[in-house]
Amino acid sequence: MSADPTDGSGCVFCRIVDGELPAFRVHEDGAVVAFLDRRPLFPGHTLVVPRSHVETLTDLPEESVGPYFGAVRRVTGAVERAMEAEGSFVAGNNRVSQSVPHLHMHVVPRRRKDGLRGFFWPRGRYPDESEARGVAARIRAEL
Amino acid sequence: MSADPTDGSGCVFCRIVDGELPAFRVHEDGAVVAFLDRRPLFPGHTLVVPRSHVETLTDLPEESVGPYFGAVRRVTGAVERAMEAEGSFVAGNNRVSQSVPHLHMHVVPRRRKDGLRGFFWPRGRYPDESEARGVAARIRAEL
Ligand SMILES: [Zn+2]
Ligand SMILES: [Zn+2]
Repeated sequence: MSADPTDGSGCVFCRIVDGELPAFRVHEDGAVVAFLDRRPLFPGHTLVVPRSHVETLTDLPEESVGPYFGAVRRVTGAVERAMEAEGSFVAGNNRVSQSVPHLHMHVVPRRRKDGLRGFFWPRGRYPDESEARGVAARIRAEL
Repeated sequence: MSADPTDGSGCVFCRIVDGELPAFRVHEDGAVVAFLDRRPLFPGHTLVVPRSHVETLTDLPEESVGPYFGAVRRVTGAVERAMEAEGSFVAGNNRVSQSVPHLHMHVVPRRRKDGLRGFFWPRGRYPDESEARGVAARIRAEL
């Protein structure tokens, strides 16, 4: 009922967590709810969301990382077995390309020659070693 | 020196972890080593690998999940800040499309209109509710 945009009011995934919106749930525990993506890459494509409204991975509190990704790992095994998959793709978008601003990891069953590729996109190269060294140094400086 | 294929001998990422192969490292702690992908989607594209040789996410021991993904989360923030990104893409391939059979999560800095899309692939729909219900039940049964 609050209009505070930081509490997840109005958030579609919070409403699924709360049972206000329907979803095909596959798992829930104290930390997460997992349910089928309505627009699957392949049948069995599941989303795992933390019960608490956090927008992105970097917003997830440190103490929630283990419970959340423990559930992602467990759901991944279940999706692979249930769909008789040969592998899986586990991915999340933070802000850019993120459809719903509530952290969610996609768990997608994969088969060889299923038409997807791990990364579709053209992959580049660093023009030279010093460029790569500089980029690594910039990231290290933020850690 | 062992020929046991389960210990990671010969594994490229184990050799990077051990310092036998060069890499542009951005982070390391007791659980992980993180280094630049040599074929980045965008500069700053980083791989985070557990120090221990495990092939896929479901092979990661439960007690390692928190330390591993805690590092992934931390590296994600650093990559976003260092590359002045607007967001990020965090993903791993298990077996299918997995280039090196040693668990690694990709952390890729993103910007709006950077030419990538979260998921490029055609997304389907379940033909009807009972189909989705059946899939959800199969996954639940494996949990
Ligand atoms: Zn929410
Ligand atoms: Zn290895």
